[in-house]
Amino acid sequence: MSLLTVGTVAFDAIETPFGKTDKIIGGAATYISLSASYFTHPVHLVSVVGGDFPKEEIRLMEERGIHTEGLEIRENEKSFFWSGKYHNDLNSRDTLITELNVLADFKPVVPAVARRAEYLMLGNLTPDIQREVIQQMEVRPKLIVLDTMNFWMDVAMDSLKETLKLVDVLTINDEEARQLSGEYSLVKAAATILKMGPKYLVIKKGEHGALLFHEGQVFYAPALPLEDVFDPTGAGDTFAGGYIGYLAMTRNTSFQNQKNAIIYGSAMASFCVERFGTERLLNLNKELIVERARKFIQLVDTDLRLEFTV
Amino acid sequence: MSLLTVGTVAFDAIETPFGKTDKIIGGAATYISLSASYFTHPVHLVSVVGGDFPKEEIRLMEERGIHTEGLEIRENEKSFFWSGKYHNDLNSRDTLITELNVLADFKPVVPAVARRAEYLMLGNLTPDIQREVIQQMEVRPKLIVLDTMNFWMDVAMDSLKETLKLVDVLTINDEEARQLSGEYSLVKAAATILKMGPKYLVIKKGEHGALLFHEGQVFYAPALPLEDVFDPTGAGDTFAGGYIGYLAMTRNTSFQNQKNAIIYGSAMASFCVERFGTERLLNLNKELIVERARKFIQLVDTDLRLEFTV
Repeated sequence: MSLLTVGTVAFDAIETPFGKTDKIIGGAATYISLSASYFTHPVHLVSVVGGDFPKEEIRLMEERGIHTEGLEIRENEKSFFWSGKYHNDLNSRDTLITELNVLADFKPVVPAVARRAEYLMLGNLTPDIQREVIQQMEVRPKLIVLDTMNFWMDVAMDSLKETLKLVDVLTINDEEARQLSGEYSLVKAAATILKMGPKYLVIKKGEHGALLFHEGQVFYAPALPLEDVFDPTGAGDTFAGGYIGYLAMTRNTSFQNQKNAIIYGSAMASFCVERFGTERLLNLNKELIVERARKFIQLVDTDLRLEFTV
Repeated sequence: MSLLTVGTVAFDAIETPFGKTDKIIGGAATYISLSASYFTHPVHLVSVVGGDFPKEEIRLMEERGIHTEGLEIRENEKSFFWSGKYHNDLNSRDTLITELNVLADFKPVVPAVARRAEYLMLGNLTPDIQREVIQQMEVRPKLIVLDTMNFWMDVAMDSLKETLKLVDVLTINDEEARQLSGEYSLVKAAATILKMGPKYLVIKKGEHGALLFHEGQVFYAPALPLEDVFDPTGAGDTFAGGYIGYLAMTRNTSFQNQKNAIIYGSAMASFCVERFGTERLLNLNKELIVERARKFIQLVDTDLRLEFTV
């Protein structure tokens, strides 16, 4: 099934306790589309880069079945650049540099070929732009998934709430769920958010896993404890790409199947963090992904007998 | 199967975002023994209180099958008292008052009737005292579980390491696992700690669940997302009581059965936090506990087919 993703394609410079990089390829839509490309075709990408963005990287995306007609290239401008340094716990980071560059006046144009995409993944961008993309679709997608962040809750809450009315799934982290809802309990936060528009809420908790809420039901996919977490950058977007990619592949958006999508999303994220940037996402295959998903199933496997002998 | 637990029996004064209490009954061994009492009999309690500790509370414990021959009562002294205030996230707290009182020179004496207990749960105390208890046992218990905390790593690491050599299971939280091992990755931390003595490591992550490590294997029991978390005090001890109580009840300490014990421990902890102090632990029954455990199983239930259709 066809999938459209919109978001940043960018340069990142990353420092973790384990090393640092020069400018490497990053951006939400990069991670989303690479991750989704292991599950479904075609993946249409809508974004913007400057003339400094390597054509070779675009070719690598094309090779993975990612269609880049919607990737605007402004030859005389520079790509979006983000630089950050992770703390020792890898759970928090400081932003060192944010250069919007081409992103400052980005107006996404969905190419004709992608306007009937059946699945739509809106990576983190201003809620206004996310809404404009939805409005450009000729047919309402079967599933619209929205990612956002606390920054937009701080500066554009009204616009975000407008956009939320139009989507099926919202993916945010636990602190963002608390901020958006004003509720500390994630159960209460989910109940509040699910009245704002989305029918499903995915709460990403990093090394603590992910939660899926829907109509009073809840599913919890723990994250696989990893020997080495090298660089968390892009893990959330990689999760989202695997999640929506799996739903598109299986053509089934039921709660039961979304649980499976959460596990495949988590599996993809667990690969992502094993190397800097997108490196690990360029060399996977179905066997490796299924084997990793199997570990997630084993992680929670029990033969619990629900009876008392005392 | 018989279970012996050693730890504090105390007064707590607790303040959470939802209210505050005067002095109420608390202490690690109180929570452990109440929780375990739903699974196995007899539960022997070794601790010390002052003359200020209500005899009625001791009678309530006796009613729940907790044997208190080992509860020393010093009529002219005061019980251990702890007062704390939780932050809004309930994940962190400030200690306001710690009055050791009777605990300052506590020398546990395991009563004759408990010296052949088959399961031993050592609640958080100085590692010296924990070791003395092990030495008083006439027969080596089938399973010795040790709880400890970062404070003892700071001030008594050598003694703690001596004690660790004598136990089967260590229960600590994620930060403590990192401190004890010097490793950030919990997988690496577990590998290091499992060389110090324990054959099993349980990492308690509060609202993020619990991990069980054993010989390169890992199990992750997520915590049930709760509508209301009222007071986290005692949740870790309640978890430990349910965990070892279930193992004692089922007479099976295999890795597979320890997974089940983790789920029952988590279920008990989820009850504990619903009310202040021990209140919720006094009015449970088998049906409620099994029903809660069922929710933990449903929480991670999937029908994932490990195949790709793309």
